[in-house]
Amino acid sequence: MGLGLGFELLKTEGAARRGRLTTAHGAVETPAFMPVGTVGTVKGMLPGSVRETGAQILLGNTYHLMLRPTAERVAQFGGLHRFMNWNGPILTDSGGFQVMSLSDLRTLDEDGVTFKSHLDGRRHRLTPERSMRIQHLLDSNVTMCLDECTPFPATHEVAEKSMRLSMRWARRSRDAFVERPGYGLFGIVQGGVYPDLRAESVEALTGIGFDGYAVGGLAVGEGQQMMFDVLDFTTPLMPADRPRYLMGVGRPSDLIGAVRRGIDMFDCVMPTRSGRTGQAFVRRGVLNMRNARHAHDTRPLDEECRCPACRDYTRGYLHHLFRAGEMLGPMLLTWHNLTYYQDLMAELRRAIEEGCFERRAAELEAGLALGDLPAVPDPLAGPVAAPPVPEESSSVPVDL
Amino acid sequence: MGLGLGFELLKTEGAARRGRLTTAHGAVETPAFMPVGTVGTVKGMLPGSVRETGAQILLGNTYHLMLRPTAERVAQFGGLHRFMNWNGPILTDSGGFQVMSLSDLRTLDEDGVTFKSHLDGRRHRLTPERSMRIQHLLDSNVTMCLDECTPFPATHEVAEKSMRLSMRWARRSRDAFVERPGYGLFGIVQGGVYPDLRAESVEALTGIGFDGYAVGGLAVGEGQQMMFDVLDFTTPLMPADRPRYLMGVGRPSDLIGAVRRGIDMFDCVMPTRSGRTGQAFVRRGVLNMRNARHAHDTRPLDEECRCPACRDYTRGYLHHLFRAGEMLGPMLLTWHNLTYYQDLMAELRRAIEEGCFERRAAELEAGLALGDLPAVPDPLAGPVAAPPVPEESSSVPVDL
Repeated sequence: MGLGLGFELLKTEGAARRGRLTTAHGAVETPAFMPVGTVGTVKGMLPGSVRETGAQILLGNTYHLMLRPTAERVAQFGGLHRFMNWNGPILTDSGGFQVMSLSDLRTLDEDGVTFKSHLDGRRHRLTPERSMRIQHLLDSNVTMCLDECTPFPATHEVAEKSMRLSMRWARRSRDAFVERPGYGLFGIVQGGVYPDLRAESVEALTGIGFDGYAVGGLAVGEGQQMMFDVLDFTTPLMPADRPRYLMGVGRPSDLIGAVRRGIDMFDCVMPTRSGRTGQAFVRRGVLNMRNARHAHDTRPLDEECRCPACRDYTRGYLHHLFRAGEMLGPMLLTWHNLTYYQDLMAELRRAIEEGCFERRAAELEAGLALGDLPAVPDPLAGPVAAPPVPEESSSVPVDL
Repeated sequence: MGLGLGFELLKTEGAARRGRLTTAHGAVETPAFMPVGTVGTVKGMLPGSVRETGAQILLGNTYHLMLRPTAERVAQFGGLHRFMNWNGPILTDSGGFQVMSLSDLRTLDEDGVTFKSHLDGRRHRLTPERSMRIQHLLDSNVTMCLDECTPFPATHEVAEKSMRLSMRWARRSRDAFVERPGYGLFGIVQGGVYPDLRAESVEALTGIGFDGYAVGGLAVGEGQQMMFDVLDFTTPLMPADRPRYLMGVGRPSDLIGAVRRGIDMFDCVMPTRSGRTGQAFVRRGVLNMRNARHAHDTRPLDEECRCPACRDYTRGYLHHLFRAGEMLGPMLLTWHNLTYYQDLMAELRRAIEEGCFERRAAELEAGLALGDLPAVPDPLAGPVAAPPVPEESSSVPVDL
């Protein structure tokens, strides 16, 4: 393996791409979805279970890890792979997005950004050089350039200024990044919803040269159609021989639509975060397992799913776990949602290989629009059953 | 298999017993520790993982399950084994203890007890007959008689009155219990700390006849020595050919001491509940993983343990999970603690088989008294390392 990351384009159908990213910690079949392991753990999952879902690469968050336990501490433990017992590839973000969304009292200047930790209020500083150093200490396989997350909506002027700052930081990120075999650096295309700015950003980044290119500044409230529009005029400009990563996206239909537009990599907290609150992604859309309609339902969550939640349990049991506030509920739904996401990506990869991506994508989209199966009647409902009447006599009048 | 539960006494050493309980859902090697699966789940564990720790039987709580999702609902799903996907034996308590410790506005009378749910304040009624019915609906392999949990301390008069009520309820529990092959009913010896009352209670219960006999009313604040004293004068009176269960006990040293005194079965929330708060039971005692001394410690929690927490992770990582409030911390420490408890029981069983129980018990007790390994120095501590100094220059004065 030479310096940097390998990327092989195996097959295309229209703009959709079937590829393979190779890193020092193994290969990633693309299009790929990366589960988010914010602070050194995919919440509620053992790494072996994450692997079982089909995930091949995880995302770690520079912002969270630099604050706790610190990048230096992770390095003392031999890097993030060893610290968290995940021996596959890891991509880390640059910290820029969370500085903007989580921290207090941010001060941005040409050199970088100063902020207060959301954990203890202590001041920290992030620059392109410091972000590269942190991601190096974490032993990240795919390092992301530090960029400014352009707010939405933003005027052309604001988006231009922000994008150009990000491009200068991209240059400094590239200069600070330490090249190693199987490790690489991705540039991040910015420019808001403006075609000329996105084009300028792609040109700036390809002029510098990166191992891959991300599309940033989307999934920030612009809506799915506008996101797709931006991809429509952005991805064709991006190098075909390098992986393309759509940051922070998204829902299943977002993934299908973005693969259709030539994206290779995704990350999103949605399957994990939603799973913890009782939301399940299934082939027919989204279910809320807290809903009373599931209480007496002996059917599995999703008949076609291979995960433990669907294989070993009923909807009624999952409902019970969430109603009772039991940890196993979030654990099982996280496992299910990640399995669903990985199986969706596997289907898209297979469809591209077999040259039937458009047909299969349309079928999957139609399935998502179906909505849940009709509810089943409650055998305990009605005049005699629930709430149950005690069978023994009792001298005390009670409500049972 | 005839009606009831099988019990085979395989070997004894002094009062310590090596046995085997057989149920419709499989065998239990004794002495055995039963993890607590309060509301249809061992908190934070998949049943397959519980099985991997070596557990062969789980405890379910009648009080919790009768309130939510209700016994009738569990029965609709085919019983507790199927509801929670645990195909091994299950023992359920009678609900009496939790009515006393968790519910509000309890009113006890000769017939039973009326109480308000701690969940929604609704009134419920529990009688010996209702408790039997609920445990039947749950499909419990080992049903416990409804008894009154005698408070501690209690005068002889109070303890006597309470014990005699429990004995009348034991008679009614026996009458209401539906016998089935591989299912059985345990009586509960009460009588506080008074030898004459314990003896009277054993006599009353053996007069009725049960599949097994529990010692109740201990681990309620009387202290280890007094608990052992009660066992010393109680277990010799109990039938030798039936299993003996010490309810709600306990710490590792409690288990060793009670096996020495002829107890076969145990349950306690300690390994699971403590695990969720960061307490780890190890061969050298108890550790608190939240303690800062573990932050930089690259050693495993317990060198000799086979569980994933010890096999795949460092103390520093476990510390990090608890500091960051990550679910994986409780998950891993629960797994560890249950593994430790099961391995302890396996050692005690093996020692009885090999006729070296007293020597091995003394070694284990000596180990527990050792306390944790000495702390290791922090390589990041000192004048230059932590908090880290940024390597890049910065125009803004910051605290890093």
